[in-house]
Parts: sequence; structure tokens; C-alpha cells
Amino acid sequence: MSNVNITPLADRVLVEPAAAEEKTASGLIIPDTAKEKPQRGIVVAAGNGKKDEPLTVKEGDTILYGKYAGTELSVEGKDYLIMREADIFAIIKS
Amino acid sequence: MSNVNITPLADRVLVEPAAAEEKTASGLIIPDTAKEKPQRGIVVAAGNGKKDEPLTVKEGDTILYGKYAGTELSVEGKDYLIMREADIFAIIKS
Amino acid sequence: MSNVNITPLADRVLVEPAAAEEKTASGLIIPDTAKEKPQRGIVVAAGNGKKDEPLTVKEGDTILYGKYAGTELSVEGKDYLIMREADIFAIIKS
Amino acid sequence: MSNVNITPLADRVLVEPAAAEEKTASGLIIPDTAKEKPQRGIVVAAGNGKKDEPLTVKEGDTILYGKYAGTELSVEGKDYLIMREADIFAIIKS
Amino acid sequence: MSNVNITPLADRVLVEPAAAEEKTASGLIIPDTAKEKPQRGIVVAAGNGKKDEPLTVKEGDTILYGKYAGTELSVEGKDYLIMREADIFAIIKS
Amino acid sequence: MSNVNITPLADRVLVEPAAAEEKTASGLIIPDTAKEKPQRGIVVAAGNGKKDEPLTVKEGDTILYGKYAGTELSVEGKDYLIMREADIFAIIKS
Amino acid sequence: MSNVNITPLADRVLVEPAAAEEKTASGLIIPDTAKEKPQRGIVVAAGNGKKDEPLTVKEGDTILYGKYAGTELSVEGKDYLIMREADIFAIIKS
Repeated sequence: MSNVNITPLADRVLVEPAAAEEKTASGLIIPDTAKEKPQRGIVVAAGNGKKDEPLTVKEGDTILYGKYAGTELSVEGKDYLIMREADIFAIIKS
Repeated sequence: MSNVNITPLADRVLVEPAAAEEKTASGLIIPDTAKEKPQRGIVVAAGNGKKDEPLTVKEGDTILYGKYAGTELSVEGKDYLIMREADIFAIIKS
Repeated sequence: MSNVNITPLADRVLVEPAAAEEKTASGLIIPDTAKEKPQRGIVVAAGNGKKDEPLTVKEGDTILYGKYAGTELSVEGKDYLIMREADIFAIIKS
Repeated sequence: MSNVNITPLADRVLVEPAAAEEKTASGLIIPDTAKEKPQRGIVVAAGNGKKDEPLTVKEGDTILYGKYAGTELSVEGKDYLIMREADIFAIIKS
Repeated sequence: MSNVNITPLADRVLVEPAAAEEKTASGLIIPDTAKEKPQRGIVVAAGNGKKDEPLTVKEGDTILYGKYAGTELSVEGKDYLIMREADIFAIIKS
Repeated sequence: MSNVNITPLADRVLVEPAAAEEKTASGLIIPDTAKEKPQRGIVVAAGNGKKDEPLTVKEGDTILYGKYAGTELSVEGKDYLIMREADIFAIIKS
Repeated sequence: MSNVNITPLADRVLVEPAAAEEKTASGLIIPDTAKEKPQRGIVVAAGNGKKDEPLTVKEGDTILYGKYAGTELSVEGKDYLIMREADIFAIIKS
């Protein structure tokens, strides 16, 4: 999963957002602009934390975050979000 | 109660809001948009706190919080609120 | 006085506001919307304070606070205010 | 001077404002709405200060403060201001 | 110079502003509202500083400060400015 | 690469932005105003960090930063960005 | 260069801005209002820094700063800028 050649700085984390669901529960196909932005993603790379505050999340963690968290970043044609760990709400245990 | 597979980060708490009452005191059925958002809920999962500041609330606590506290989060089809402990006003002793 | 089953968190205090006077000095009955919100109340329950900062007020204290201090909270059909100790101006000695 | 039964909390001070002058220098009587709010007053009661920061002003001090400092508070029919010590500019030596 | 009976609190300084020049370089008399507020003044009284931070300026220093620094204060019919030392830009050596 | 004669102060970094691509994926030539500002650049000079916080990036690092990070600075006819290290998202490993 | 009789306070620095260029590259004379404010200047006097934080720049340094950094100050008929060291981007090595 993590062979992007990117090292986030300090308390930042590179996240691959989960694909937005393309059908509603009743099976309707959702046109692109009506899709909800996903709030679930996978940590692809994590920074080294701030002085005396190592990060809690690590590469491979599935996380939940707010709808407007992070900045969109396109790396090698693929879309990622880069956010601070403080913008992450929770880890989903697998 | 707490078999959600979610670990809130730092000082965050996952809360299951109490169901809003569907009748007024006089027995009228309240249409959906007029219902007051509940301010009472149960802690379903709690984070590990911040550095040197463990959390006070724990899983299972019934809590009171402000009308606009937290962010709505849908986990496995069920609605939760995720909020910081600082947004919690008080614990209701049972 | 304090048999509410509520424990305020950290530096918060549960306050029972004094009843607003229902007559003006000249004896006129004041309609409900013209009544001034009281600025005096009794501490019904107090939190444990923040790390290294215990609270100064305690259960039973009569206090003065600003007109817009705190959040209204209805507990068992009775109206209270929950506020931070920093919103309290002074204690009235009895 | 200080027999009000009030104890300000922390870094707060209860101040009795000096009466606004009711004549201009040229002897005109000033109607009530045109009077400048006084900036001079006497400390009637002082709090215990914050942790490790005792207050500098004490009961009986005549002080100067900004036009909009403090909150008006009516105690036993008399008007006072309650303000933080940081809102006080200077002490007038007598 | 400093026989005002005023003690500024903490990091505050009482300043006597230099008189605004009443003529332009070309000799025109400037009407009162067009005069630039002076940015130069003399320290008339200085506070004791904040905890562990004594003040740098002292009584008698000629100082430069921003156009909008401080609060106007009238003491015994004379206009002063009371400002925090952080609002002072520089000392003019004599 | 780094023979600019400039030493950024404290936690600042001088960055040479990567040239914006002048064609779209489909080969269209992009007129100047439609070009996206690059988010990728090379650190040309780095400051000494703040007290007890040395910088993480160093001269020669290829970095990713937000669209609006930094201030444009023209040095010897060439355009650079000067930004704080906190505005840098990540380092691209080569 | 530095025989102004001025001592900036704390982390402030007195800067003599470089003269704005009066011709464009193509030799046109620029009318006064169209001239760009210079971003380059020379430190004429520097303060003693803040507690435990001495300044990095010193008298005689050529510096780069933001377009809107500092406050204009006229000393003995000459225009200077007084700014905090944090507003300085970089030192130009000579």
C-alpha cells in the first residue's frame, strides 16, 4: 500500500480516501456532483510527529475524519489528502 | 453497549445520543423537523486523552452536552456524535 | 439543596438561578418577556477543577454572574445554568 | 467603605465609580445622556488573585480605568463595576 | 517632570505626548483637525513590569510610539496617554 | 543549485517553485492565466530554525506545499517563494 | 551608517528602505504613485531582543522583508521603517 515516495512533515499524515459509494441504498446511480465526500480513508504515510509528541496513527490504519479535513494533493495522478493528526477523529479497528 | 470497532483519538469521545422524545408533554406527536436535538447521550468509546491529561468520562457514562457539540458520524448505519471531552458539561449519576 | 444526580466536569458549575422579581419597585406586574434575567444564583454542584486548579466556589454558595453566562440546561423539569467558574464574578457572603 | 458582603473571584475587583460631574467647566448643567462615564473609582473589594499572581490593587485604592472597563453590577440598590485587574490602568496616590 | 501622583500598573507607562507642530514646513498655520497626532512623548511614570519582566523604559525617557498607541487620559486638566510598553517602538537617546 | 546569497531567518525556507506544466494531459497548450500554480518546489536555502527547534528540510529537498503558501520574492530577476517550514506538507524522496 | 540616536525596544529593528527604482527595465520613468514599495533595506539600529531571545540581525545587515512589514517613522526628516525581527524574511549576504 505505501510505496508512495513521500514523507509528511511533523504531525501530518497522507491519507488515501475511500472511494465514495456510487449507488444509493435503493440502487440509484449517483451523478458525480451529488456524491458525498468520503470520511473514511487509509493512512498511506505518517510524519514523525512534533517535538515530544509522536503520532498515534500509523501507516495502514483505517481512519475517520471530518468532511472538510485536510488539503487535496495529487501525487502521480492519484488523489490524496494531507491532514494533521488533530483532524483525525478515530481509528477503525479491523 | 460498546462493540463498535472504533477508537477515538486523544481527547475525543464517541457518543450515542439519546432518542429525541417524539411526543410533547401534552401528547402531541412532533413532526421530524420540530424535534429538539437531544442533549443527553451515552459514551460508547473514549480516547486515551492528551499527554498528561487522561479523560474523566468512560465508556457507559451518561453525559450532558451542548446542543451543537460534536460532529455527526454514521458508523454501520447508526448515528453517533464524536466530540472532545471539553464539550461535555456533566456526567449523570445513575 | 444538592440532590441533583449530576457531576459537572472540570471547571464547570451547575447553578440554580434566583427567581426573577415579578414586580417592579413601584409594584407593577412585569409581563414575562420584559423580566430581566437574574444574575444571582446558588451553586448546586461543582466540578473537580482543572489539573492543579481546584475550584474556589462550592456547593451552596450564592454567586453573582454576568447576564449571558452559561448554558441553560433542563434537569428533571427544572431549569439550571451550567457555566465555567471563570464566568462567575463574585461570591455573596451570607 | 467596604462593608459590602461580596468577595470577587480570582483577579476581579469590585469598584465604586466616582460620581460623574454634573456641570461642565462653564457651569452648564449636563443632561443625563450627555454625561461622560467616569474613569475613576475606588476599589471596594478585591479577589485573591490568580495562582502565583496576587493582585496589586487593594481595598480603598483610587484607580483609573478605561471608559468601557468592567460589567455593571447592582448590589443592594447601589451601582458598582466588577472588572479584572488587567483593566485597571493606574493607581492614584493620595 | 514627574510629580503626577499616579502609579501605572504592571507593564503600563504614562506618557506626555509632545505638542503637535502648529505650522507646516512652509509656515502655514494648521487648523486643529488637520494636525497629525504626535508620535513622540516623554515617559512621566512607569509601572513595575510584569512578573519576571521589568520594564525597559524609565521616567524621563523620550520615546517613539505608533499613531494609535495607548488610551487618552486626562489627569488634573492635562492630557496624557497610558500605554503598554509593548506599544513603544524606540527610545530617543539625548 | 544554491548559490543565491540569501540566508532565510529562523524557520523560513527559500523555495524555487517547479515550472508549471504548459500542456494539459491531452496536449493542449494552456494560456498563461489558466495555469495552476505549482505546489512542488526545491529548497534553495533554509534558516537555522527556532530556539530548540532545528528545521527538518534542508537545501536540495524537493517539497510539496499548499497552493497559497509563502510570499513571492524576486531575487536577481528570478522568482522564489519564502515560506515557513510549517507551510510545507511533505518531502518527496528521490 | 548608524548615527541615528534611536534605540529600538525588544525585538524591534529600525530599517532604512532601499530607494525604489525610478525606471522600469525598459527605461520608462515611473510616476510616483506607480512605484513598488521596496522590500529591501538596511538595518540601522536593532533592539536587545526579548528575554532569552537575542536578535539574529545586526546593524548594517541588508535584509528582505514583506511589502507591508513595519510602521513608517520619520526621524530627522528621513523615512525609516520600524519592524519586529519576525517580519524580516532573510539576510542578503554581501
